[in-house]
Amino acid sequence: MEILDGKKISEQIKQEITEEVAAMKARGEKVPHLAAVLVGSDGASLTYVGSKVRSCEKIGFESTLVKMEEETTEEALLAKIKELNEDDAIDGFIVQLPLPKHIDEQKVLLAIDPDKDVDGFHPMNFGKMALELETFIPATPFGIMEILKRYNVETSGKHTVVIGRSHIVGRPMSILMSQKGIDSTVTLTHSRTKDLTAITKEADIVITALGSPDFLKAEMVKEGAVIIDVGITRVPDETKPKGYRITGDVDFAEVSPKASYITPVPGGVGPMTIAMLLQNTLLARARHNAK
Amino acid sequence: MEILDGKKISEQIKQEITEEVAAMKARGEKVPHLAAVLVGSDGASLTYVGSKVRSCEKIGFESTLVKMEEETTEEALLAKIKELNEDDAIDGFIVQLPLPKHIDEQKVLLAIDPDKDVDGFHPMNFGKMALELETFIPATPFGIMEILKRYNVETSGKHTVVIGRSHIVGRPMSILMSQKGIDSTVTLTHSRTKDLTAITKEADIVITALGSPDFLKAEMVKEGAVIIDVGITRVPDETKPKGYRITGDVDFAEVSPKASYITPVPGGVGPMTIAMLLQNTLLARARHNAK
Repeated sequence: MEILDGKKISEQIKQEITEEVAAMKARGEKVPHLAAVLVGSDGASLTYVGSKVRSCEKIGFESTLVKMEEETTEEALLAKIKELNEDDAIDGFIVQLPLPKHIDEQKVLLAIDPDKDVDGFHPMNFGKMALELETFIPATPFGIMEILKRYNVETSGKHTVVIGRSHIVGRPMSILMSQKGIDSTVTLTHSRTKDLTAITKEADIVITALGSPDFLKAEMVKEGAVIIDVGITRVPDETKPKGYRITGDVDFAEVSPKASYITPVPGGVGPMTIAMLLQNTLLARARHNAK
Repeated sequence: MEILDGKKISEQIKQEITEEVAAMKARGEKVPHLAAVLVGSDGASLTYVGSKVRSCEKIGFESTLVKMEEETTEEALLAKIKELNEDDAIDGFIVQLPLPKHIDEQKVLLAIDPDKDVDGFHPMNFGKMALELETFIPATPFGIMEILKRYNVETSGKHTVVIGRSHIVGRPMSILMSQKGIDSTVTLTHSRTKDLTAITKEADIVITALGSPDFLKAEMVKEGAVIIDVGITRVPDETKPKGYRITGDVDFAEVSPKASYITPVPGGVGPMTIAMLLQNTLLARARHNAK
């Protein structure tokens, strides 16, 4: 059994980007610039956005944090997005979700210029992904593909079972794993699936994106399977300083002895998301340059 | 075994649209207007486009056929598309494929206003479909969904196996069948899939979109399966006036006795495509009205 070390891979990627940015600077080129829009003061959102901005600084990107008040109108947010769309200095930007309830999230995501949509949530980018055109792949699925690639996990002709059909993980993973060049046979399962165990037991690769702690048990997987755990759930734990621990969808103690490769939680898929957001911003810069 | 009679269903849909258009006329409203762009004089393309235009006339739509010469430049075609995008009289339009080799098909499809893209081939519409937003679903997948609906074929919790991952049939079918409200567990198979028979034998619903005559044999399906045959291949046949017959992916003689429902070829999925193109044009009209 080998651990798919997302933390290590994400550090490698950030290191590669850091070198690339240093080379850009040395050539006198403009470095990538990521902006993040945060509406309101939700604690978790502040933490996420702060972490993204700090990562930009660390690797040499320019970054802008746009903080807007909880009471911001949809109109004002849309005006800000228009400004960011039109600002040539900004290569890519994200709007941190969730947004306050009085704002139509879908309308906001649709207002982002697809060429700056480094989160890859715009339908235009999602459609391009499905049609195998150049696009921005959402950070979590992109991160999983990168882990599989860097560990040389064989995907062609393998049976991949994805658990969960969310728009940000399950659905894109089912599409990416069956694309040309990856070539898995993919089964997408969800809450209405009958006899899930019969399906997961046949899988060469299992990707769980449920948010249900310790859901995947040893009897549900076959010997030698590759296990990708996208679940991140906070479970109360008084022995921890923060009063909780992070738990995945996979019962790691039970499943890991049967697996050929497995992502831990934490330290697996999670750390990849910021690295891939940075990677998308670097791509955005290159594409704007190419225009 | 019950035949899924696409010919009958398509006639019903056209009848419903005819009545709706008559009612629109009676209310003094503008009727839907479909335009079709044909570049060159390929025989099959001429037949398809001609059939679409005649169907429009028959059900009371306005229609415009834009014929352009084989030597048309990409620039001239793009200018024509811009004109159609901006023409308020046109609700939807299609560009008949394939295009001459000197024209970049992808560039042309991307130039079509997604709100008029009644073929549903634009990445924006494909992405909206995948994200379960209001869109235009490509005619063939839309037609299959309509057949399943009108015959009350149970899809929820069923295992659907799609054979073929093309952008116009296999991929969209795999997405649509696993969407909320349809709720199939979906396996998407393709040329790299190993032991296809083991997979199709477990399927409650098999959708083949290969273009490989008589590919699906009785031993590949389980008793009581629903069989949707999207294959349309011309096979030389000197006993026919045209010198060929149309053959599906399914060995109908062998498979039909085991099936609970099955689409014939011809007369199954094929006739649905024009009906769903007309349905999309009606939808386009309604959406433009609503703006």
